[in-house]
Amino acid sequence: MITKPAELVAAIQRLSVRGAPALGVAGALGVALILRNGERENWSIPDIEREILTLKSARPTAVNLAWGVNEVTPLVPKGATEVLLRALEIAAEDGASCRAMGRLGAEFLINKLGNRKLRILTHCNTGALATTEWGTALGVVQELHSRGLIEEVFADETRPLLQGARLTAWELQESGIPYRILPDGAAASALFSGLIDAVLIGADRIAKNGDSANKIGSLGVAVAAKQVGVPFLVVAPESTVDRSITTGSEIEIEFRSDEEVTRFAGVQTAPPGSRAYNPAFDVTPARYIAAVVTDKSVYEVSSGASL
Amino acid sequence: MITKPAELVAAIQRLSVRGAPALGVAGALGVALILRNGERENWSIPDIEREILTLKSARPTAVNLAWGVNEVTPLVPKGATEVLLRALEIAAEDGASCRAMGRLGAEFLINKLGNRKLRILTHCNTGALATTEWGTALGVVQELHSRGLIEEVFADETRPLLQGARLTAWELQESGIPYRILPDGAAASALFSGLIDAVLIGADRIAKNGDSANKIGSLGVAVAAKQVGVPFLVVAPESTVDRSITTGSEIEIEFRSDEEVTRFAGVQTAPPGSRAYNPAFDVTPARYIAAVVTDKSVYEVSSGASL
Repeated sequence: MITKPAELVAAIQRLSVRGAPALGVAGALGVALILRNGERENWSIPDIEREILTLKSARPTAVNLAWGVNEVTPLVPKGATEVLLRALEIAAEDGASCRAMGRLGAEFLINKLGNRKLRILTHCNTGALATTEWGTALGVVQELHSRGLIEEVFADETRPLLQGARLTAWELQESGIPYRILPDGAAASALFSGLIDAVLIGADRIAKNGDSANKIGSLGVAVAAKQVGVPFLVVAPESTVDRSITTGSEIEIEFRSDEEVTRFAGVQTAPPGSRAYNPAFDVTPARYIAAVVTDKSVYEVSSGASL
Repeated sequence: MITKPAELVAAIQRLSVRGAPALGVAGALGVALILRNGERENWSIPDIEREILTLKSARPTAVNLAWGVNEVTPLVPKGATEVLLRALEIAAEDGASCRAMGRLGAEFLINKLGNRKLRILTHCNTGALATTEWGTALGVVQELHSRGLIEEVFADETRPLLQGARLTAWELQESGIPYRILPDGAAASALFSGLIDAVLIGADRIAKNGDSANKIGSLGVAVAAKQVGVPFLVVAPESTVDRSITTGSEIEIEFRSDEEVTRFAGVQTAPPGSRAYNPAFDVTPARYIAAVVTDKSVYEVSSGASL
């Protein structure tokens, strides 16, 4: 169990807490944790402010972490309990927000593609394990499935950390949704072979024009989907939208260690001494995105809508 | 050491012998092996013909295997020694062919991009380990390196079997060429970030119009490269060109086992019972290919040239 702020920051950095909505809740709960520790150990105001700043910047690309921290910051003078109550409220709102995204996304696809069984491609994990409930992109899949409209999900394995093969596959299996796992490099093949009706992914930060940062590998899928006319949808709560930036070029991308690529499950797979190019995220330009689906609205960004 | 035809077929199927040129040589040497076994054990003509057919169809997509077998088939009535001599000749020709491709490819890029240090993206393994010498796409890299014109190679790790991370990285390290390994999903990010000057890949079968089958993941790289105007070159010997087919839609794609994707180095990574979408190859349409470079010529197929 996490009882110290430094433990929470470490958990976020090693991706034990991951997924944009879950990070938002973790940011808010983290501030409560800092205040509780501070009250117990008599931290000074600058000490508390420094801890909050460390938490807020634990991962640079995901905007939700900072959003969660900012949501509760005005309550800091009122103490740990007030902050904790607001954090729990954010967690509850996340559930409602996921349900809303699921409905809006499902209805958009039904309008666009007809009331028929769909074959959906996903990347990374955007389900219950990345949120506090139901999921973002996978929430749309759950909503479609509850209406009997999922034929099969193609889940990209999502190298280097295999969130698709490990987490998404597990959630789909638990939900009884038919799925196949594919190497990330096979997504273009599936799209060009006519096996996919729509692509659904999440986001870690979305610029005002719709450019979206998401797990590395999303951009390649978006580009291939566009070539074959398959709609590519980004599904994320409004808290993922960063209206302070106009385009995706302003999004800072986190780079992670060589070892995530050159080793696997403790085994060295590449020649010792090999370096890696290992960005955690890429930015998909809005022109490849049929729509950004939030809990409030559907923005058809490749047709010129802005958020 | 392989002494029986069935052992060679098994080695080809588990990819111990791989890479288009190496498969051509293996096809020719395999016929010699069949004849030697047949002479020792008094096989009938239909027995020998059946063994040759089994060898020829061990992998459906790679045309070079069948090409190597066909090259020596007229010599079968003359016996094992004649076939062996021709097979060794093919191996020697492969070396010269790789050198020719290296020169033609390097000169094409220098003409197109100028006499400057280049950053090259590769996929799968196309070096000495896939040929009998020097390599196809990696032969172009070696040629450029020998002229001091390589800044860095970005080697796609190439899931599911990691030929890039294991084989290409090793060959680059041995040659003293700077390189970084990247997850296949990061190739689009590298291209869109302006880190790549040209993409070089091999091929397993090329249709008359230039459509090229190559290791799964090549298509996605080609599509992304086209979007940012980075030349995408296919480098393969003339024996890879199948002039009996007009377009890539006639190329049969080999599908491989679920376990290559759901397990890794003996460890189950996906939930037990998960299925996979695991084509070994994809087909890149000619419109995404700046040029097909063979040992004879450079065909600018996206500009309408045919082979």
